[in-house]
Amino acid sequence: MEAEPARSAWERLSDAPLTITALAFLVAYAWPILEPAIRSDAVGAACSVVTWVAWVMFAVDYVARLVLSRDRAGFVRGNVVDLVVVAVPIFRPLRLLRLLTVLKVINRRAELSLGNRVAIYGLGAASLLVFVSALAMLDAERGATTANIRNFGDALWWALATITTTGYGDKYPVTTTGRFVAAGLMIAGMALLAVVTASFANWLLSHLSSIDRAEQTETRRDLERVLSELQQVRQRLASIEPDEHAPPPP
Amino acid sequence: MEAEPARSAWERLSDAPLTITALAFLVAYAWPILEPAIRSDAVGAACSVVTWVAWVMFAVDYVARLVLSRDRAGFVRGNVVDLVVVAVPIFRPLRLLRLLTVLKVINRRAELSLGNRVAIYGLGAASLLVFVSALAMLDAERGATTANIRNFGDALWWALATITTTGYGDKYPVTTTGRFVAAGLMIAGMALLAVVTASFANWLLSHLSSIDRAEQTETRRDLERVLSELQQVRQRLASIEPDEHAPPPP
Amino acid sequence: MEAEPARSAWERLSDAPLTITALAFLVAYAWPILEPAIRSDAVGAACSVVTWVAWVMFAVDYVARLVLSRDRAGFVRGNVVDLVVVAVPIFRPLRLLRLLTVLKVINRRAELSLGNRVAIYGLGAASLLVFVSALAMLDAERGATTANIRNFGDALWWALATITTTGYGDKYPVTTTGRFVAAGLMIAGMALLAVVTASFANWLLSHLSSIDRAEQTETRRDLERVLSELQQVRQRLASIEPDEHAPPPP
Amino acid sequence: MEAEPARSAWERLSDAPLTITALAFLVAYAWPILEPAIRSDAVGAACSVVTWVAWVMFAVDYVARLVLSRDRAGFVRGNVVDLVVVAVPIFRPLRLLRLLTVLKVINRRAELSLGNRVAIYGLGAASLLVFVSALAMLDAERGATTANIRNFGDALWWALATITTTGYGDKYPVTTTGRFVAAGLMIAGMALLAVVTASFANWLLSHLSSIDRAEQTETRRDLERVLSELQQVRQRLASIEPDEHAPPPP
Repeated sequence: MEAEPARSAWERLSDAPLTITALAFLVAYAWPILEPAIRSDAVGAACSVVTWVAWVMFAVDYVARLVLSRDRAGFVRGNVVDLVVVAVPIFRPLRLLRLLTVLKVINRRAELSLGNRVAIYGLGAASLLVFVSALAMLDAERGATTANIRNFGDALWWALATITTTGYGDKYPVTTTGRFVAAGLMIAGMALLAVVTASFANWLLSHLSSIDRAEQTETRRDLERVLSELQQVRQRLASIEPDEHAPPPP
Repeated sequence: MEAEPARSAWERLSDAPLTITALAFLVAYAWPILEPAIRSDAVGAACSVVTWVAWVMFAVDYVARLVLSRDRAGFVRGNVVDLVVVAVPIFRPLRLLRLLTVLKVINRRAELSLGNRVAIYGLGAASLLVFVSALAMLDAERGATTANIRNFGDALWWALATITTTGYGDKYPVTTTGRFVAAGLMIAGMALLAVVTASFANWLLSHLSSIDRAEQTETRRDLERVLSELQQVRQRLASIEPDEHAPPPP
Repeated sequence: MEAEPARSAWERLSDAPLTITALAFLVAYAWPILEPAIRSDAVGAACSVVTWVAWVMFAVDYVARLVLSRDRAGFVRGNVVDLVVVAVPIFRPLRLLRLLTVLKVINRRAELSLGNRVAIYGLGAASLLVFVSALAMLDAERGATTANIRNFGDALWWALATITTTGYGDKYPVTTTGRFVAAGLMIAGMALLAVVTASFANWLLSHLSSIDRAEQTETRRDLERVLSELQQVRQRLASIEPDEHAPPPP
Repeated sequence: MEAEPARSAWERLSDAPLTITALAFLVAYAWPILEPAIRSDAVGAACSVVTWVAWVMFAVDYVARLVLSRDRAGFVRGNVVDLVVVAVPIFRPLRLLRLLTVLKVINRRAELSLGNRVAIYGLGAASLLVFVSALAMLDAERGATTANIRNFGDALWWALATITTTGYGDKYPVTTTGRFVAAGLMIAGMALLAVVTASFANWLLSHLSSIDRAEQTETRRDLERVLSELQQVRQRLASIEPDEHAPPPP
């Protein structure tokens, strides 16, 4: 970050506007899905405009960060998700993951350990994903005549049963788009379980580790005592040592 | 804890009465669900009274602990669950988690390691949750005409298939309340798996770690030998060192 | 073990006979379930006798070990499973877990690390459990008219989908006994996942740990060099030190 | 590897041809399954030939490596999978796992840690397994009249729901062959979850560990200072020590 002053300056500048854009996009994305009736009236039109403006903002942000980077190839490789949510319409809902940056503020204030930070991001991302997937699923399935996910309650219920890998099977997608959404959520479920388990193991083991560290600190203190002893020995030796440059004793 | 003498004194005092209250609440909560016929007779009325008294006791306990705390904001933040089970009727059954404090006595007697303590709490909480969720689910689903969970056996079976994230799907909630109960249990299932896995990994790794520690102890012993050697060296040096305050040798 | 010479001697003596008994029990338990027609003929009668003899042998073994123990309360606490499979008929099939002792021989020959030993026992126990649960399930469900597990293939398929917590729900128990079997297998599935994950994490981390250990060995070698240096210093000092007991130099 | 120069030379030589063979086998295996109509025409015949040639190539490779090994028993024990995919027709599709060796090139270029290498192999193997299992499942189920997996989309969807252990149960195998494929995929799902969780835990803990290592490095530096101090002391002692071989001072 320090090595990219121009890009960092832009990112500090664009942080708040982009978060607000993501919030506006959340409303504009969710509203027509939850109330399909509005699609043909003024509210629906407004939602379309907001969605379009949000796309422009995210695209401008991506291009700006790319242009301001010194290591452009490295930037592209390290920000694949950002490119995908701008370039591929079907991954559009993932722009809402932008809202995770709000968690940065919490982390900065609370000075959490790496394990806790990872756990909070994991749970935040999981909650957002459940909500966004439920919306995307409802959007995908509504048109299908054989669909069994028919309202937002069903969709949320399905999303939760999927991300926890419970998979009752009372509700499941029947469209291809819906299955892609489900695939993403199943994989996210595995990742979430890994994050929760690893964070917990990390917490347990950091206690073990802190015992080790206490003992190492003890070892270091002993070593310092050894060093100070040795310095005293050398000084005493110096005081009894015959002066080499002095004339030999007669 | 030491920093909160007033609250600690109250907690020691209220420990037994609250556990008994939780047990009484367990009976008063479970009975009308398992035998709906009693709801209209004297037993049902008694159960209502016990439920109400239990609420008062938990509320008084919460307020007392809050008032007796020095750091009240910290108390509220650290005891969100306690507030929720008192203030929100739907989370009422979670009061039974209070019974987990019984495990404290076992832990105190057995002097278990952190990993084992976590595992025991995890399994205890999981068992209680399965039981309480089955009750809450039966209560929620009984009214629904399309319900497939129709007796306590079904409910327990469903709860177990859910907390282990197996999710056969032969039994599943159809009411909104039931789905909320299920959501809690699925999330608990993930957490339980994390706890079991992490505890087990911890046990395996603490063996590895104890090998490391044995070697560190060895290192420490070596260091002590170095120190004692050095002290002997300094004493010998002192004995051959010319006395600085004595007159110079003639 | 060393502290219980009488019991250890018995266990060495009874090891082979009990394993053979468990194998015989496996056949006598599985045969009438897989081929119900034999129940009324001579083979069925023989199976009953073998089952009965196996029970006597396991019971005698348990009592003998209890009597030969010095710390009998400790023995009862540490061998609850052994008591349960003898005393409670429904847990009878778990006697087959006795066959896991065959793995001991493999472990003894291969000198495996703790992590690998745990993984091998875990997988061995899981395979046995899948097989035994499929048998017990088929036995429980065969009588039920609404059962969907109707042959051993179905039962094995169901057992595998359950222990991996996949839970398709195309096959599931409908009897109470069957549900108890399933409950055991679901819980075993969670434990198995914990064992597999922890063993794997252990393997990964032992590599990390071995790097640490290499560095500690380096540290120890340095310390030994310090000690030998110091001993040389002391010897040299001794040689220049004026002899305290000798008469002062003239 | 270094101890097997002849086999290593062969493996370097056969690396590219075998990968190409695996790719050709992938096409020849997938095509007739995805388009059954071609089975009776020239393309189908060509696919049969490629499949047969691929088998010969894999068999020759296995035999060559066996013959060129010094420790042949060790080779057989360490390459069971390679033997099985050559000798048992039903495990034929697993030959595609050969394509995982492409990942070696990526790993060699990127110089990844053990944890990351394991994660990449795990995800690569999982993706290949999902694809191959979907093909094998479609092949197995197509003939069954009661099958609910009827096209490649269904098969992929089923494979994903299985490897993540979600198991909705809307699609499931009904043939014995299909159930064997599913069994393999469920077990792979457990292993995958273990790999993902352990890799993640490893990543978290290696941060903890790197703190420990930093402290150990500090300890080592201290020890080096102790050693250099001691060497100075010994040199000074040598300079004041009376020369043992010189004539005694008069």
